[in-house]
Amino acid sequence: MTMGPLSGVETPTIVVDRGCLERNITRMAELTGERGFALRPHVKTHKIPEIAALQLAAGAVGLTVATIGEAEVFVGRGATDVFIAYPLWLTAAKADRIRALRDRARIAVGVDSAASATNTGRLLAGVPVLIEIDSGHHRSGVEPTEVVGVAGAARDAGLDVVGAFTFPGHSYGPEAAAPAARQEHDALAAAGTALRAAGFEVAVLSGGSTPSVAATEAGGATEVRPGVYVFGDAQQWELGHCDPTEIALTVLATVVSSYPDRVILDAGSKVLGADRAAWASGYGRLLDYPEARITTLSEHHATVVGVDLRPGDQVRVVPNHVCAAVNLVDEVVVVRDGQVEGRWAVAARGRNS
Amino acid sequence: MTMGPLSGVETPTIVVDRGCLERNITRMAELTGERGFALRPHVKTHKIPEIAALQLAAGAVGLTVATIGEAEVFVGRGATDVFIAYPLWLTAAKADRIRALRDRARIAVGVDSAASATNTGRLLAGVPVLIEIDSGHHRSGVEPTEVVGVAGAARDAGLDVVGAFTFPGHSYGPEAAAPAARQEHDALAAAGTALRAAGFEVAVLSGGSTPSVAATEAGGATEVRPGVYVFGDAQQWELGHCDPTEIALTVLATVVSSYPDRVILDAGSKVLGADRAAWASGYGRLLDYPEARITTLSEHHATVVGVDLRPGDQVRVVPNHVCAAVNLVDEVVVVRDGQVEGRWAVAARGRNS
Repeated sequence: MTMGPLSGVETPTIVVDRGCLERNITRMAELTGERGFALRPHVKTHKIPEIAALQLAAGAVGLTVATIGEAEVFVGRGATDVFIAYPLWLTAAKADRIRALRDRARIAVGVDSAASATNTGRLLAGVPVLIEIDSGHHRSGVEPTEVVGVAGAARDAGLDVVGAFTFPGHSYGPEAAAPAARQEHDALAAAGTALRAAGFEVAVLSGGSTPSVAATEAGGATEVRPGVYVFGDAQQWELGHCDPTEIALTVLATVVSSYPDRVILDAGSKVLGADRAAWASGYGRLLDYPEARITTLSEHHATVVGVDLRPGDQVRVVPNHVCAAVNLVDEVVVVRDGQVEGRWAVAARGRNS
Repeated sequence: MTMGPLSGVETPTIVVDRGCLERNITRMAELTGERGFALRPHVKTHKIPEIAALQLAAGAVGLTVATIGEAEVFVGRGATDVFIAYPLWLTAAKADRIRALRDRARIAVGVDSAASATNTGRLLAGVPVLIEIDSGHHRSGVEPTEVVGVAGAARDAGLDVVGAFTFPGHSYGPEAAAPAARQEHDALAAAGTALRAAGFEVAVLSGGSTPSVAATEAGGATEVRPGVYVFGDAQQWELGHCDPTEIALTVLATVVSSYPDRVILDAGSKVLGADRAAWASGYGRLLDYPEARITTLSEHHATVVGVDLRPGDQVRVVPNHVCAAVNLVDEVVVVRDGQVEGRWAVAARGRNS
């Protein structure tokens, strides 16, 4: 099967299937609701206010972002409760930008050291903060045993400590989700116990990721922050966390060359992203040809093996890491039942700071 | 040494050192001039009209682009001779866009099969074309022995065959540049001989890449299309094709967390790009700390080992593949002698089609 062309759409273009997107949003809202977790989806995945509105309408308690720039875009489009899940190192200019947002929304931020707590309090007294803890990913975050020290520094600096958060990023690997979810549970539970014992009120223990959320147990997190689930991607497909019918975003691409051993698509790393985990089978997948493999990727070429196509054929490519792909384009085409319904601007694209 | 902050610049931000950029442009113009090659730089690397103007002022004969969208941006800013070095599969809409450009500029395009020649001629009769040949990279392009067949199909389709081109992309590897340049020479020379023997006038044999251009011998290419040389990047540094004093583009980043075994920067794959060749030492380099290594990269975090830094310190990160990094931002900060001189829009960012 090859895709028929979409009217008015030139390749390569990112296409979102709205029916599939809405089903993914509903499914995650139901899953987290049944399990008793508040859902605060990470909107760095899509950077699109129209999608955030669908998530909030489905019951999300607020939004998660990675940067102040993303917070500015979503508050500008009506979000009233935003967590910047990042250990910000504030400057006076960055603090001013957060202060300006606080007139219109509740903004919470992350801290992960006494130094960052002191720096944040000096520039932005009274802001709600969550202490970042390391649940095994070994990126930012302190050990759960250190959370009280950082929380004390935050309180001393005039910040409003509301809880702790962690990102179980080591859940992105084969057979990794369940053990990572277990570590996340234990780390958040330990942090919550330690904070309460030290006299802190713990309103939020925040965790979760698309791979781990289905395995997350009660008693650790009170809130989860998955992002990728809205679209799915080749990583989640290959890890078994979504199936092809649940993939809502693809890159429509055209075969430009065909050789006996390979075909070349007009979609490369500048629309798919260059992410490739060690365990991935290639640089993305073809939605309608699960046996095909993308063996190499240049900026504007994908080399595909295992498929018989001719120049001019169109295919739907599933990026490995959808957050990276969306961040490469200014807008996406929205399709319902195979017909173009409109376009959405990727309003927070490139808002890195 | 840590960077001092740049006035008015928040991190992460891409910074271009204009003095270094101008020296790189001059050096490549001199190198290619001495060796007798016309220089047609690939502007996909920078996507910035101000830099293209510097390249043309230094003697470039025209520009190379990868997409019609890039051609539109640079012709819109005054370019009059543009080669789209890509085996385009035209639609009527894409042909119309090229036709519109031909009123203002000479536009040449690539074809790499009889099918693409026929398709191109049907939609865009009379356009100058170069036949793409494969010199060992095994992406797109035909064998030199097949070039006459494709050229004949192009002529039959009403196209103006002006020569052949190749991309020796296999030059991007340790000790790979000289052998790739040799293969490029032999392939272009063979294609030229075959085309002339078949009665074609061969105005252009186009090759070249930043790694291979210094090793390219006379008698093959008449023209070269390097791109990365304007900025340099960590790949070229690690391959020995530039040294740190020749790196004109860095990502200014702030240390947000410091642990005994690592520090975390606020620059991740959404500003550095995720490219990592198998032979690369990490996900980029720190310009002022050559011993440091970026061991993992998330969207907004780089994990760095081998360096002693504190939260709030700023560092200059050299992306692995500079073409990918520039394509992530809407503008770059231009610095001369350590002072901010202005900002340039990345005018062709995201022009993938």
